[in-house]
Amino acid sequence: MSTGFVSIVGAGPGDPDLLTRRAVDRLERADLVLYDALASPEIVSLATRAQRFYVGKRAGRHSMAQRTIEQIMVRAARRGVRVVRLKAGDPFVFGRGGEEALALAEAGVPFEVIPGVSSAIAAPALAGVPVTHRGLASSFLCISGHDPEAFITTAEKLSPGSTTLVIMMGLRQRGTLARLLVERGWPKELPVAISWAASTSSARHWYGTLGEMMAFDASDGGEDEAGTIVVGEVVRVALQTRTPLVAGDTDASHVAFAARAADEG
Amino acid sequence: MSTGFVSIVGAGPGDPDLLTRRAVDRLERADLVLYDALASPEIVSLATRAQRFYVGKRAGRHSMAQRTIEQIMVRAARRGVRVVRLKAGDPFVFGRGGEEALALAEAGVPFEVIPGVSSAIAAPALAGVPVTHRGLASSFLCISGHDPEAFITTAEKLSPGSTTLVIMMGLRQRGTLARLLVERGWPKELPVAISWAASTSSARHWYGTLGEMMAFDASDGGEDEAGTIVVGEVVRVALQTRTPLVAGDTDASHVAFAARAADEG
Repeated sequence: MSTGFVSIVGAGPGDPDLLTRRAVDRLERADLVLYDALASPEIVSLATRAQRFYVGKRAGRHSMAQRTIEQIMVRAARRGVRVVRLKAGDPFVFGRGGEEALALAEAGVPFEVIPGVSSAIAAPALAGVPVTHRGLASSFLCISGHDPEAFITTAEKLSPGSTTLVIMMGLRQRGTLARLLVERGWPKELPVAISWAASTSSARHWYGTLGEMMAFDASDGGEDEAGTIVVGEVVRVALQTRTPLVAGDTDASHVAFAARAADEG
Repeated sequence: MSTGFVSIVGAGPGDPDLLTRRAVDRLERADLVLYDALASPEIVSLATRAQRFYVGKRAGRHSMAQRTIEQIMVRAARRGVRVVRLKAGDPFVFGRGGEEALALAEAGVPFEVIPGVSSAIAAPALAGVPVTHRGLASSFLCISGHDPEAFITTAEKLSPGSTTLVIMMGLRQRGTLARLLVERGWPKELPVAISWAASTSSARHWYGTLGEMMAFDASDGGEDEAGTIVVGEVVRVALQTRTPLVAGDTDASHVAFAARAADEG
């Protein structure tokens, strides 16, 4: 009966060239694409023969309930439709991919998960920061900053600076997160990099310290963009290379930065 | 003078279809490819017009010194050569990509870093395990298991089971790592999944508990394969879906597993 199939696909950090070959193949062959806010239009438009539905949370409207999304996938697959569930970054890093996999397995719908380039690693890279680096960090903790209390319960146990902290979904709360860390003995001088809209044409990044991040007040303005915060000594690598890595198609900018670094070095 | 360019490229976990489009482009245009042990032959062979050199650590010979690799890249780029430095997974997750970026910046050689699908996330996914999952884990610690003492110094501070542990380069030491965790109060019943050679045709995985992993004795045999260990409640998701996700091109196996799960459910 069931000849449909669901592919839960990681779209990577935003740049269509950071899609995997398999993700491109599945988009091109899809009949139906369900995508979230962070999926870039260029990526969604690769699904030329598919109906495409936005099921994300932003753009001033209510998000579709998770359960509804799962039901749409199950029903479509049972009608023989090839479904792509497109998720920013990797489906299994804060993407609720596990929940959707469980729902599909429970319904007996065949599916696959195609991992993507995760913003947890690629967004720091865009800011020039390796999450691990010999002599600076041999581990990294990737953690949600959405709920500051849950965040600090986990993060406070680590020795300050011993582990790179990669904080996702924490932009709006970043002042609070920094204050919580400093209250627990993390040094104000610890370097921080923030990367917004990694790998897209509107990408930008900021370098500072935990102490400087403490000053951010969430009421200062809306922060609906996606962004990743990285805290740790590894940020010093970016300050040494001063190269904006992974800067999309603008190879020229890499060259310019690296050459400038050499001139000044 | 310098018209060459170095691309430090993440090759992903092994399957050529998990390469990014940009990685494929750079391989196809490369004059020189320097690759490590874990780069699969299918991926290296995409560099049809390039000279290809193995600079990795295995295959019974000495590895080339890191400094030598960096010098080769710098000299080649200065001669106008397009160099691809190909690294398994993502270049910035235990890949020494940061060190190479620093060496290139210091030498004034223009370069870029192209992130890849990291085995830290994709290898658990191959075993059906999401590193984060609502209600089970809102963070994951990715850590090297190569040096058990350094490993436990960081890992012991986390509340057992509160965070998913993703252990890379720890296969040979896995008995010791499990014993160290259990000695520090991590429950023997905590589920574990191990994924070997993720996304390649020789991929396999094992499910058990910390207590069972304690029994592994490194002297039992050589463990030179790449593998990733994931420890935490999130492993239960895999046991519920029983779907070998990301299983290369063998879509049929996904279908078979998902259908079987439904039959039994």
